[in-house]
Formats: sequence, structure tokens, C-alpha cells
Amino acid sequence: MIDKNTVAKEFRTIQDEICRGLEIEDGMATFSEDAWSHAHGGGGRTRVITGGNVIEKGGVNFSAVEGELPAFMKDKVSAEATRFFATGVSIVIHPFSPLVPIIHMNIRYFETNAGDSWFGGGIDLTPVYVNDEQAQYFHIEMKNVCDRYSLEFYPRFKAWADDYFFITHRNETRGIGGIFFDYLRPTEVLAKEELFHFVADVGRTFLKAYLPIVATNKALPFSQQNKQWQLLRRGRYVEFNLVYDRGTRFGLETGGRIESILMSLPEHASWLYNHVPSEGSKEEATQRKLKKGIDWVTPQKVQ
Amino acid sequence: MIDKNTVAKEFRTIQDEICRGLEIEDGMATFSEDAWSHAHGGGGRTRVITGGNVIEKGGVNFSAVEGELPAFMKDKVSAEATRFFATGVSIVIHPFSPLVPIIHMNIRYFETNAGDSWFGGGIDLTPVYVNDEQAQYFHIEMKNVCDRYSLEFYPRFKAWADDYFFITHRNETRGIGGIFFDYLRPTEVLAKEELFHFVADVGRTFLKAYLPIVATNKALPFSQQNKQWQLLRRGRYVEFNLVYDRGTRFGLETGGRIESILMSLPEHASWLYNHVPSEGSKEEATQRKLKKGIDWVTPQKVQ
Repeated sequence: MIDKNTVAKEFRTIQDEICRGLEIEDGMATFSEDAWSHAHGGGGRTRVITGGNVIEKGGVNFSAVEGELPAFMKDKVSAEATRFFATGVSIVIHPFSPLVPIIHMNIRYFETNAGDSWFGGGIDLTPVYVNDEQAQYFHIEMKNVCDRYSLEFYPRFKAWADDYFFITHRNETRGIGGIFFDYLRPTEVLAKEELFHFVADVGRTFLKAYLPIVATNKALPFSQQNKQWQLLRRGRYVEFNLVYDRGTRFGLETGGRIESILMSLPEHASWLYNHVPSEGSKEEATQRKLKKGIDWVTPQKVQ
Repeated sequence: MIDKNTVAKEFRTIQDEICRGLEIEDGMATFSEDAWSHAHGGGGRTRVITGGNVIEKGGVNFSAVEGELPAFMKDKVSAEATRFFATGVSIVIHPFSPLVPIIHMNIRYFETNAGDSWFGGGIDLTPVYVNDEQAQYFHIEMKNVCDRYSLEFYPRFKAWADDYFFITHRNETRGIGGIFFDYLRPTEVLAKEELFHFVADVGRTFLKAYLPIVATNKALPFSQQNKQWQLLRRGRYVEFNLVYDRGTRFGLETGGRIESILMSLPEHASWLYNHVPSEGSKEEATQRKLKKGIDWVTPQKVQ
């Protein structure tokens, strides 16, 4: 029987595994932890890594909180529900090198006292410079973890990520997407236990999908121009998180722990007026790929 | 008779005056202009200054647009209204030196085709380090322009600025405030013509309130620590503008010209995890003053 404690325990284990894996790849910095408790019950472990060999600023956060169901959630659950429990792991990694992509992952579980429960989550990659091969590798990893549970998952969750990680006012995606899913409830085909295994598997795919890309790119030389482009892309990341990201806005509006929520923001970001990459540049090549609907898994369609 | 063309013409003149005044004080950089037109009618002149002696990045924007009344405005106007006209000048200046405050100004006029019209606007100052004397000078200028039209204006608009320029999730004000007002309609005491003169006078108070502070501080030496604190304060400025600012969110949601709207963001900003100014530091002294309800005009209450 998968209950909330089983899920929270597994999520904590995944947090531990990911922190260890990132520390080894970074090779210098280690995570420091802030344990905190929520005003309405529960708490979390915010783990932060800064000033590393690879990672400029990153967070791997676990939380398990409970409380009264917020008003805006009420249309999503049965009428009898009055309280909720939510647990999750949230990650954002901002590497120092513009050649190492920003990555975000989230896995979460939600239940009400009326017996309703669901999973959500996703992983998405934001390269400062899109490398088609690495994008393909990343998406194949996403597809693989999905395919182990349902062949319908990857096409659905890939499109969902394209739609979710979209900066409407810029008419561009945040990066190359990945997978995103929410309100994943048991069906006749997939029991709650299988959904739990799927979500935990997504969590365990994080290192497998990300570390080879980090390892390949982390020592490559880069220019000041590369760095400036990175700061501008991070500016877009800030725009997405503050304007659109549901988790961020939910946290800001419900009085969550601000430092854990805004951990997702980079140490340095930049905005230039009306910056347009020069024609034929690598920056322009990346800009052209920040759109929905690209089939990253099948290379001929990437070109 | 004050019609929309009278207001727009005066606003354009104010834009010209302010750009000239800022260029002289900067002493090096000049504004470049992008004239643009709005999909639904009208247009604007976005003026940007970057890389100056004093100003790292600044915008002084004029716009005059018209179109169909957006759905969310309908409860603010008479039921017969179907179209709107809006004109305004918007300014954000991000100086290079952490000792020169960030400043924001907006004056605006709005009317519908059903004969309803109102003015709005304000000026607020965001010092990276609060200097009580300069804060007093700034607020006295705000009080003076208000008092020339109504003794009720300053107390009301000062409190409104405290409430408006508030970063709820940080529980702090953006800076030392100033004045903010909206939906200013003619009354028995103040005719539309007087409100027009008031708003234009607010526009003309901008240089008078800001330039002496710039002139006093612009050549003062500063440290790396000052610069870092500035980048963090700018991060808060980004948070305010993307999460709360009505003009920004209105623009993003209604398909305004993105580069003109996000001109308000600084060239460089920074976020550190859980940064707390050290006890007894100048940064901590400023942090303690980022709250509502401070009487900046009367010095003994500032201390």
C-alpha cells in the first residue's frame, strides 16, 4: 500500500541520491542543508550548493507539508476534501559554464483527506547553446523512463512540457523542454503503485540524463560572448519563474518559504534592451530552436 | 478644454525635457529612440540610454494607444464604454553606482468612448543605501508638488505608494516610496484641467527631485560590497516588476511591446540564497528602513 509516508520517504532518498551524484560531478562544492518547518504542518530540507567547480548555484529541495486546502484548489478535488498533504523534490541547477545547461526537475505527490491523490512532475533542460546530439540524448532518456510505464506518456508529457515551459510574452520556450505531467491519477491500466514507481523512476532518471552532458561540457573553454548570452538566457529563466511558474506563484501566494522557492533564481542574470543575436551566430541558432513541437528524439527532424 | 491630444502633446514635451535633463547630468550617453506603433492603434517613442557615466540602463518611454476596452477594465468604467485611449510617460533609471538611487516615474491618462476619463501616476525612489537627508529632500519635493493642488494629496498618495511598491513575499517595500495615485477623476474641488496640471507638474518634478541626489552622489567612491548589495537590491526590483507591477503585468497580458515594457529591468541583477546583511552594517541599516509608514519628511521620526 502506497501511503503518504512511503512516498515522502522515497522522495527523501531520491534527494539524497541526487545530492551525492551532483557533488561527485562537481568535484568541489558540497550541499549545505536548511531544515525548516511549515507554519501549518510539516517541513522540508532545502539543500543548496554554490560556488562549485561546475555549479554556480543550485538547489535540491525536499518538502512534505500539510494544511487546509487553499480555496483555488477546491475545483480540482472532491467536495468533501478540506485538508491536503503535499510532498515533493524540486531541483534547479545553474552551472557556471554557459556550455553546461540549466536543469530543472520536480516530482510531487498530493493527497486530500477525502481520499483523492495524484502525482505530478517533470524534468526539463535549458541549454544556453542547444547541442542537437545532447538534446537527443536527453529526450531519449525522458522517452525511456516514460515508455517503461506507458507508451502514451512520452508524447503526451513532452507536448505538455512544450506548453508549460513557454514564455508567452517572448513567444519562445524556456529551453528544449523535456517532460511535464500533473494530476496523474490511477487508471484501469496503471495502479497507484505503478504511478509511484514511475515518478520515483523520473527522479532517478535525473542524474542519468544530466550528468553525461555535464561531464562532456564542463571543461570546454568559453568566451565572454558565451557568458553574456548565458546571463541573458538566465534573465528569461527569471521571467519564466516569476511570471508563469505555477509552483513559484503558488508558493509566493500561499506564504511558502521564500528562500526555498526563489532558490530557483540564478546568482547572476542580465537584461539588455532589444538584444537580437547576430545573423548566422550560434546564439541565433539556439534562439531559432526555442519553439514548441520539435522532435528532439528523431535527429533528421531536429535539423 | 483638456482633450486627449492636449494631454498626449504635453506628455511628449515632458518626455523631451526629462531626456534632455538626464543626458546633461549623465554627461556622456545620449538617448536613442525606437518609434513603434501598436497593433490596435497609436504607438510610442521608447527612449533608451545605456552605458553612460551615471546611467547603466534607463528608459524614458512615451506611448499613446487606443483599442477595444479589455474585459478586466469593464468594471472600472461605465457600461456603455467599448473603447479606450491611454497615454503616458514611464521612466525607470538604473544608475551604475550603488550610491545613486534607482528611480521610477509614471504619468498616465485614460479615457473611454463613453466620456469617462482619469489620471494616474507617481514617482518612487529606490536607494541601494538609504540616506535620510536625501530621502527627506525627495519626499519634500513630492509633498510640494502635491500641496500645490490639494493638501490631501501627499498623505493619501504617499500611503498609496507604500502599499503599492510593496514586495509582499519579502515583507519589504521596494525602496523609500514616494507618491502613487490612480483613477484620479474631477471633483467639485478639482476640475479636469487642474488634475491635468497636477499630473504634468508631477512629471516636471522628476528632474528637480532626482538630479540633485544624482549630482551629490555620482562621483562618490564605492566598494565591491556596495556593488554586490546593489545587484541584490536590483534582484528585488525585478521580483517586484515581474510579480506585482500592474503596468508590467497588464503589458505582458495584453500583448504590449515587450522590449518597452521590460526596459524597466536592470542590465545586471543577482540573487543569493538566504542572504542576510551582517549586523550593524550599512546594508542592514537600509534593510530596516524598507517598510511602510515611515515619515520621511519629518526627520526626527526617520531616526
